[in-house]
Amino acid sequence: MEAKVVYRKDVQEKDLGGGVYRSVLAYNKDMMVVEMRLEKGGKVPEHSHPHVQSSCVRSGRFCFTIAGEPVEVAEGDTIAFPSGVKHSVECLESGALTEIFAPMREDFI
Amino acid sequence: MEAKVVYRKDVQEKDLGGGVYRSVLAYNKDMMVVEMRLEKGGKVPEHSHPHVQSSCVRSGRFCFTIAGEPVEVAEGDTIAFPSGVKHSVECLESGALTEIFAPMREDFI
Repeated sequence: MEAKVVYRKDVQEKDLGGGVYRSVLAYNKDMMVVEMRLEKGGKVPEHSHPHVQSSCVRSGRFCFTIAGEPVEVAEGDTIAFPSGVKHSVECLESGALTEIFAPMREDFI
Repeated sequence: MEAKVVYRKDVQEKDLGGGVYRSVLAYNKDMMVVEMRLEKGGKVPEHSHPHVQSSCVRSGRFCFTIAGEPVEVAEGDTIAFPSGVKHSVECLESGALTEIFAPMREDFI
């Protein structure tokens, strides 16, 4: 398996509706980097998945709810989610998250 | 295992010398988020590890060498490295990389 390089100029953003946008960045079968861009008020409803996940706040302000507990995060804050934990997010100030999944999210391509 | 939240204000940056700085951000046993900050001319010499890795350029400009091939990347570009591939990086313009490893890098703590 070779390294995969993805240049910003080649990235296609997908409009998921409700002020939520997803861009799939570099990935291989073991790991996938995704950028989520949310407008203020945009929400990703509660869900869970077997993949391990990290979320890195690049800009804006977000309220994650993780296993029922709210957590407010802003630029430079990071979260590591174990496999299977229920989580949701609401955007408090428009911004972007870099999210990493292991293994890759087959459902995103 | 619970989710782990790391706030930017609590992060301690480690000076690795030669204009290279590492901050360990959120992690659990399965995944670790690290920020690497490099000054122009800073280098991480060739190495490899069994961990899968992704590198996300947050700012600046970098030349990675991956399995002997140079790749120049800038803000917004991302790379997914398979396990065991030899790689190095040189900083062309001061900036920062968000790097994610799976599983966690025990040697970073």
